[in-house]
Amino acid sequence: MDVIRLGLAGFGTVGTGLARILDINGERIEKRLGKRIEIRRVLVRDLDKTRSFDPGPGVTFTSDPEALVNDPDIDIVVELMGGLDTAKALILKAFAAGKHVVTANKHLLAVDGLELFEAAAASGTGLMFEASCAGGIPIVQTLKENLAGDEIVKMLGIMNGTANYILSEMTTKGMDFTTALDEAKALGYAEADPTFDIEGHDTAHKLCVLIRMAFGVDYPLDTLPVQGISTVTPLDIEFARRFGYRIKLLAHAKKVDDRLEAGVHPALVPYTYLLARVGGNYNAVRLEGNAVGPIMLHGQGAGDLPTGSAVLADIMNLARQTGGRCHMLDNTGFRNQHISMAAIVPPGESESKFYFRFTVADRTGVMAAIARSMAEHGVSIAQAVQDGEAGAEGVPLVIISHETRAEAAEAVIAEVDALDFSVEPCVCFRIL
Amino acid sequence: MDVIRLGLAGFGTVGTGLARILDINGERIEKRLGKRIEIRRVLVRDLDKTRSFDPGPGVTFTSDPEALVNDPDIDIVVELMGGLDTAKALILKAFAAGKHVVTANKHLLAVDGLELFEAAAASGTGLMFEASCAGGIPIVQTLKENLAGDEIVKMLGIMNGTANYILSEMTTKGMDFTTALDEAKALGYAEADPTFDIEGHDTAHKLCVLIRMAFGVDYPLDTLPVQGISTVTPLDIEFARRFGYRIKLLAHAKKVDDRLEAGVHPALVPYTYLLARVGGNYNAVRLEGNAVGPIMLHGQGAGDLPTGSAVLADIMNLARQTGGRCHMLDNTGFRNQHISMAAIVPPGESESKFYFRFTVADRTGVMAAIARSMAEHGVSIAQAVQDGEAGAEGVPLVIISHETRAEAAEAVIAEVDALDFSVEPCVCFRIL
Repeated sequence: MDVIRLGLAGFGTVGTGLARILDINGERIEKRLGKRIEIRRVLVRDLDKTRSFDPGPGVTFTSDPEALVNDPDIDIVVELMGGLDTAKALILKAFAAGKHVVTANKHLLAVDGLELFEAAAASGTGLMFEASCAGGIPIVQTLKENLAGDEIVKMLGIMNGTANYILSEMTTKGMDFTTALDEAKALGYAEADPTFDIEGHDTAHKLCVLIRMAFGVDYPLDTLPVQGISTVTPLDIEFARRFGYRIKLLAHAKKVDDRLEAGVHPALVPYTYLLARVGGNYNAVRLEGNAVGPIMLHGQGAGDLPTGSAVLADIMNLARQTGGRCHMLDNTGFRNQHISMAAIVPPGESESKFYFRFTVADRTGVMAAIARSMAEHGVSIAQAVQDGEAGAEGVPLVIISHETRAEAAEAVIAEVDALDFSVEPCVCFRIL
Repeated sequence: MDVIRLGLAGFGTVGTGLARILDINGERIEKRLGKRIEIRRVLVRDLDKTRSFDPGPGVTFTSDPEALVNDPDIDIVVELMGGLDTAKALILKAFAAGKHVVTANKHLLAVDGLELFEAAAASGTGLMFEASCAGGIPIVQTLKENLAGDEIVKMLGIMNGTANYILSEMTTKGMDFTTALDEAKALGYAEADPTFDIEGHDTAHKLCVLIRMAFGVDYPLDTLPVQGISTVTPLDIEFARRFGYRIKLLAHAKKVDDRLEAGVHPALVPYTYLLARVGGNYNAVRLEGNAVGPIMLHGQGAGDLPTGSAVLADIMNLARQTGGRCHMLDNTGFRNQHISMAAIVPPGESESKFYFRFTVADRTGVMAAIARSMAEHGVSIAQAVQDGEAGAEGVPLVIISHETRAEAAEAVIAEVDALDFSVEPCVCFRIL
């Protein structure tokens, strides 16, 4: 039987997960593929570290990247080390050595994806990355193949399990942000430094990767508006609930005429929407195609076996195509053609309903002043609530606006925050 | 530019939808595929009928099946006529003429799928059927490729939009079954003869098709237990709500050791589950893999454009593989190997919690008699409710059981229905 030989760069959660799946599902995989998949070499930093799973006697561990990428007995390099420079160098060397690459590295793809696609095309090798977005959910393949004939007009995603877990705990148990974050850390859902997860950067990386597949254009990561969830308080969750919403960290992208509007923001999602029901550390992506209509994919966005399952899907996809019988390896879904820069809707021009929570001194004329500022900036008020006891910290005044430009909302906030009755900076989220 | 030439058999809802999508998304499709897709010939019964969409001057209409399948200028035959014998004959002739086939015909696939797979393999042609199950939801491809390395342990589906629409209307508006069905007919969601949809047969066809992809075995349609929704009343919907459930028509299949348990039943789904939130004419499929964990795909299960989108996905998939550069056309996801018969859990042995609604005379000893019957058959009672005014039609007595064998539930029903206090036959549904 043909054997597809893997070289793994990194043997952490996902690498171990992949090895476990090959172990327990090996027979089924052979039956479906007519080929055996074997891990041959594993690149690790510390050769002496104890491993939670032993991939078997046929596997050589090495700490030398060259030994991995130049091993003539390896067909596919599986990059699971993360980070930017070292991973990129390894992948480029793998291409140069004629090896296919499967990676889960969304950060690298977001930053240097175009360069990697060009390098893969130049060497005629495959670059697959199902595991980079939303764990086990087959979103990359769905965009690249299943919906290839659709014009995607809109994409919404909950793509960070840590952030969603924290928001879910705050919502169902009334926890504050810090307590929920500590709990997520204790459960292993959040890393020691959770900045990427809670500040929206991880979601932004995934969004950049998916935008290319969905819209065929590149939205540079450094220009993408990104807002995290660390400013969300139990008070906001409670107000959102009163108005019929749940707060979720959303990646969004949509076509506005021939331009693309995109960003990562905490947003109030109507509680009747399926997206509002995505709980715990789950992920979901909702697509809207001009033919297929709305589609939602839901599943586990992280974890050893779910993400390992996505890595395996890519390996099997490549394995089906190797051995001389293969059609062109189309890494991008657009026949590896140059991906051009998106025409971008400037973030300030993007339109949304907004939730404003002002914290103000409890005195006459406050509502009038805020309402006047909003009117002057063309922000129309849909609902307003002021209640709660006045204390030294002021009272919350919540306003839900009609559809308005983000820059108008920002102008109102800057103006009101500067007024003497403002006790704390305004907290502002989008409403879906 | 290469052209992929289609022959359509049937030009109803889905055929028209496909033609529309090729019209509006043609440019995008060419960009992704590097090939143009053109409809060349359309087989219809009545050449004089007025069409809602004109596919253009390059399309020849014919009423002769031979003219379609033997046209040397056609690469792919798209079978959208439905039905069994005529469609089967057409597909087999297409294979014999070396043409690939894309079909949405779940009934034919459920009944004669194995024979069609063998014929396609013998002629080295493709047989694709994404559109046969759950409309625009990419469930076939997901099972065949994305989750090919997973061991699927469980599958649940809401796969009939008509039935789901009726149950949703009954749930949200308190309608009775007949009123909701009439409304579905008026909106075009239900056909003049809705038997296949409401009695579960359409769902059963889809389940048989998906079981092959998910489990690699065949569950013969004529042995599959199937129960429709025509016995569901507003009273059942209301009792289900009181216990925290929504009633859905579910296809289910799961591994029990090395055997397969499957069926189509109305079932009480806990309202906190995403499946309970699938509303209107939407479809959803929930899979559980031993690696990927639970995955749910949600979208429109019918309609011209959504289903046309699935047909197009298959056409593009074949188009990528044609032209000499192709790997083996693997129609089954198991390299076209013989699909063997599933080892089946006899339906009576399948275990579930059950909802029983007895309609009984309001007299002393009724509850005792039913409870005794249940005890004798080993059915353990979890909850029981008797209320409502007693009338000539009797009072409802609802019992929720613990996990029990279906045959035990059936024995209880047969016994209690024969007792003199039973006014109407017991209504019984499974609980998820």
